Amino acid sequence: MLRFGVLGAGRIGKVHAKALHESGRAQVAYIADAMADAASSLADSVGAKTASVDDVIAASDVDAILIATPTDTHADLIEQAARAGKMILCEKPVSLSVERIEECLKVVEQAGVPLMIGFHRRYDPNFSVLERRLRAGEIGDVEMVTITCRDPSPPPVSYIERSGGLYRDMMIHDFDMARFLLGEDPVVVHALGASLVDPAIGQAGDIDTAAVHMQTATGKMCIITNSRRATYGHDQRIEVHGSGGMLRAGNIHLTTLEKADAAGFTSDLIPFSFIERYEDAYRIEINAFLTAIEKGEAPRASGHDGLMAQKLAEAAAESLKTGQAVAVR
Amino acid sequence: MLRFGVLGAGRIGKVHAKALHESGRAQVAYIADAMADAASSLADSVGAKTASVDDVIAASDVDAILIATPTDTHADLIEQAARAGKMILCEKPVSLSVERIEECLKVVEQAGVPLMIGFHRRYDPNFSVLERRLRAGEIGDVEMVTITCRDPSPPPVSYIERSGGLYRDMMIHDFDMARFLLGEDPVVVHALGASLVDPAIGQAGDIDTAAVHMQTATGKMCIITNSRRATYGHDQRIEVHGSGGMLRAGNIHLTTLEKADAAGFTSDLIPFSFIERYEDAYRIEINAFLTAIEKGEAPRASGHDGLMAQKLAEAAAESLKTGQAVAVR
Amino acid sequence: MLRFGVLGAGRIGKVHAKALHESGRAQVAYIADAMADAASSLADSVGAKTASVDDVIAASDVDAILIATPTDTHADLIEQAARAGKMILCEKPVSLSVERIEECLKVVEQAGVPLMIGFHRRYDPNFSVLERRLRAGEIGDVEMVTITCRDPSPPPVSYIERSGGLYRDMMIHDFDMARFLLGEDPVVVHALGASLVDPAIGQAGDIDTAAVHMQTATGKMCIITNSRRATYGHDQRIEVHGSGGMLRAGNIHLTTLEKADAAGFTSDLIPFSFIERYEDAYRIEINAFLTAIEKGEAPRASGHDGLMAQKLAEAAAESLKTGQAVAVR
Amino acid sequence: MLRFGVLGAGRIGKVHAKALHESGRAQVAYIADAMADAASSLADSVGAKTASVDDVIAASDVDAILIATPTDTHADLIEQAARAGKMILCEKPVSLSVERIEECLKVVEQAGVPLMIGFHRRYDPNFSVLERRLRAGEIGDVEMVTITCRDPSPPPVSYIERSGGLYRDMMIHDFDMARFLLGEDPVVVHALGASLVDPAIGQAGDIDTAAVHMQTATGKMCIITNSRRATYGHDQRIEVHGSGGMLRAGNIHLTTLEKADAAGFTSDLIPFSFIERYEDAYRIEINAFLTAIEKGEAPRASGHDGLMAQKLAEAAAESLKTGQAVAVR
Repeated sequence: MLRFGVLGAGRIGKVHAKALHESGRAQVAYIADAMADAASSLADSVGAKTASVDDVIAASDVDAILIATPTDTHADLIEQAARAGKMILCEKPVSLSVERIEECLKVVEQAGVPLMIGFHRRYDPNFSVLERRLRAGEIGDVEMVTITCRDPSPPPVSYIERSGGLYRDMMIHDFDMARFLLGEDPVVVHALGASLVDPAIGQAGDIDTAAVHMQTATGKMCIITNSRRATYGHDQRIEVHGSGGMLRAGNIHLTTLEKADAAGFTSDLIPFSFIERYEDAYRIEINAFLTAIEKGEAPRASGHDGLMAQKLAEAAAESLKTGQAVAVR
Repeated sequence: MLRFGVLGAGRIGKVHAKALHESGRAQVAYIADAMADAASSLADSVGAKTASVDDVIAASDVDAILIATPTDTHADLIEQAARAGKMILCEKPVSLSVERIEECLKVVEQAGVPLMIGFHRRYDPNFSVLERRLRAGEIGDVEMVTITCRDPSPPPVSYIERSGGLYRDMMIHDFDMARFLLGEDPVVVHALGASLVDPAIGQAGDIDTAAVHMQTATGKMCIITNSRRATYGHDQRIEVHGSGGMLRAGNIHLTTLEKADAAGFTSDLIPFSFIERYEDAYRIEINAFLTAIEKGEAPRASGHDGLMAQKLAEAAAESLKTGQAVAVR
Repeated sequence: MLRFGVLGAGRIGKVHAKALHESGRAQVAYIADAMADAASSLADSVGAKTASVDDVIAASDVDAILIATPTDTHADLIEQAARAGKMILCEKPVSLSVERIEECLKVVEQAGVPLMIGFHRRYDPNFSVLERRLRAGEIGDVEMVTITCRDPSPPPVSYIERSGGLYRDMMIHDFDMARFLLGEDPVVVHALGASLVDPAIGQAGDIDTAAVHMQTATGKMCIITNSRRATYGHDQRIEVHGSGGMLRAGNIHLTTLEKADAAGFTSDLIPFSFIERYEDAYRIEINAFLTAIEKGEAPRASGHDGLMAQKLAEAAAESLKTGQAVAVR
Repeated sequence: MLRFGVLGAGRIGKVHAKALHESGRAQVAYIADAMADAASSLADSVGAKTASVDDVIAASDVDAILIATPTDTHADLIEQAARAGKMILCEKPVSLSVERIEECLKVVEQAGVPLMIGFHRRYDPNFSVLERRLRAGEIGDVEMVTITCRDPSPPPVSYIERSGGLYRDMMIHDFDMARFLLGEDPVVVHALGASLVDPAIGQAGDIDTAAVHMQTATGKMCIITNSRRATYGHDQRIEVHGSGGMLRAGNIHLTTLEKADAAGFTSDLIPFSFIERYEDAYRIEINAFLTAIEKGEAPRASGHDGLMAQKLAEAAAESLKTGQAVAVR
């Protein structure tokens, strides 16, 4: 049974540590977090010990490192873990800098350890079936992918300020899904953005409402729209048009209830918490990582995927600044 | 071009006279109504003359009689028109008495004129396609038909009092649809009913909420539910289960709009007026009558269909009274 | 932490034992099953020991008994566990005989132990929210409840033969839901039934297609339809009409995917396995039992509820035999 | 009663002439078409005479001119009709040249006659209710508009060649809807396009698949996607996000039927013909023109609206050519 060291006992660290514990296929050996209380509380709930980050990475009874620390530590920790010969599952993004990611991936490559990036949406039961049916040719050749992602409410401005901006922080998932579903890399990106939700976000130099479209070398297109606000929940939809038809994945409602009265026919809301929305995806992701390791297969979302998504985010950010389309190498 | 005499210039008489006029396939020659103003107003709008009921039926320049007068006149007028050799389209029901219908149908048969009963739902674009797909075998053998019919609000008690009761006045349409879709005659009927909407309806000896189920000799079943109240519009649904699957016709919403906000996802209401709900059905019905006459074909809803629906209504009324199941001959 | 003895290591026993184990709130101490392999395999997976039924019930380190054995053993085991002073969660039905249930409930009452019946649908997240919203008055007074329950395919005829028939074996859940949602006891029942799915079921003296309607003393109605076959999955729907509107719980689809092509707009199937369909319900049920015990509250589905559902099933069976409506005491 | 001269007896000329005739509020006095047979056939069906274009425009018994001739004649005919003092309803576009439209609108202004452009989607019952509810503030301030328009199949290449290209010929309607719903003019446009449906369209210098996004001075965005192919019908959807929620208008299905079987739950197709899809819109448009004239009000879609939509189409075409965003004056 694989023994994991989990770095980071915050919201997403907890989700992953519990998924590992409940998988019955792996053991959470250590939890590390600068907040001692958070670390020991999580450690208790999954039968682990606590230790410092360095000790966890160095521990001889640890096979794999799960990185769920703040973004600006990811690249360093990946390198440290790789050099220690550990297998790695790291939350997105590797880094806000494309150059830094490239350096980091070289270290991983030299170390020859598997690295998987936490693009959990690839494991969402609806989206992964959508992708499988696309690949099976159900609607012929893919021509246009439309991704809608709207968060219920914006994070604190303090978070926004060190997030790298909407494209790198939020739309990064959509860039990854775009590549996953197009089956090709976009070569040109044009971005629109504005601060329409909260002026404080604009004052912090970021946007909260965005539209990006991209095109691949063969002409396929992808349209992504994002907002930091949705009064009805976490709006997560994908629609793909192909030569033979359309496939779409709609929102998951809290219940199947519908009420009819003088106000009309009202269906239930959708989840407001992304952790609730992607509960299944996180669990499946962890199990997919374990399976990939057991079978010696490449993970579904590789370091290269992390790099490419980041490049698209960079291009979008540049497009927003210049107002012009940006070519992606 | 067929020349029609329209008897009755009330709500449904107007719908039919205009549909005839706009069909481009028939001429409304005369309108008769005890209310002279109603008759002349309708006559003006469709380019017709007014005359007495007797004169219209006797007129040599009239080929067909459309009967849209009060229910208690239907049987007499059908006989009078039949004896005058006119083709007849009569609103349902022929009579509230099964015996009277049987007499009347004998007169029609002796006269050898075509008679069609105004079961407009058979012509509704959704329901008629449903029936066609059933007959085409899309879901194999029909096993169970469920019909939901809920009116937005009850008619005046004065109307209720001379209506013959919910089963004969309202559920009669559902009895006809049951036979249309089952493709067989029910042989046993059990009825439930209560006055839950308006106590005044109960005091008038009628019910406003009802459930009836029926079975044919081969075991097929039909469930009908009715209410005189629906806060969200005129609820009209049909669901059919067969050996190979299920086919259902849902409600028609006023628009395709959907709103999402903190109250949920809200679709539009459905029509509150049965005339609005069945606008297309009435138009298609009139044209179907004209086509049947032109081609010498039997109408989709015959006098026999009117008789059988009435027998089922009688059985339901008797079942409600006795509390027991009633066999239908 | 409550210590459970689980009697029966079949399909539903496994579901419950695992739910107990994963609840983190109870311990599965013993598994008993005539099939030694089944017992030990399940015991291994939840960290329990195996023992005979008698020993489990008698064990001093067991607080509660979960009964998931064949139906004909339920009443005896309940009595035995009650006399041993254990708390009891028993799969439905207590017995196929109303008299036997009444005897059994007296024993439980004398022993003063809590007894909960496994009507898992009361705990389904959609149905339980539906009930809560009804009770909160969202659609006013309940007037009509419609329950649709269609299994994907019939069980083996060998099972049918000792099942007590469709009303006692399958519709029993719907009778319970009817009472749960009506908030009143039906006083009259009329049943229709036929063998339309598989002639062998008819030859075994049972039906596979059924419609039952019932009415309470205040006039509220409930319509239940069942079939042993549904080509599209486990069809589980509830629709409730009240004085102020309608509330319904639809089917849960396998994914939110929709495909549009020349065949139309196609949504995904619904689960074919009732265990998959009611996975959440079973888990919630177990936790509800634990909560009821911890708080000393009455369970949501009591022995009395088990008795009343059985009485309705009896009435339906009698109605099918006589063709007439049956009064329920 | 207003007397109309209809120029052009092709597909859309027929739709308008019949709508005028059936409105009961106007008279079709003359039909002009270079194809004498088409003109006389249409004239017969609406009780009109035939005449040459020049004679119709000059006729003293004509109050209004409806222009449904080929695009390259629109601007000249508008000027000719305006100089003759006639009221004008002209199919979109006024011209494929922005400069030509500006000249033409000056002539209309000098003549002081009302001019309405045939942007029929503004009158579609779903879209017009959507706009009204937006204006009423149901979802707060508009932030993002998404318009999907996919034709079932491409027109002949011969038509494509003189169409002005997809942006001017097809997306022109979406540009108009964008302005109608945003309530502001876009100031920047970026376009993507490719020939993915039919290589012959690419060889003719046009595209068949397109994505355009635009932004207004206040930051509001609009995303438009078009394709010349949709295997499931004429896909016409609009979704608007505002500060308080989302409002969307979905497709209209041919019937409300749904089938469930082993293939899933299948709803009906949507119309393949735009004339069938927008039947109601065309009728309402004609009546809106009549009402605007009767009340002396400005038409809902003015010559200025025609000009602005054309400017957006020009900008999109330039963006496709240069690959860069284009500012709109």
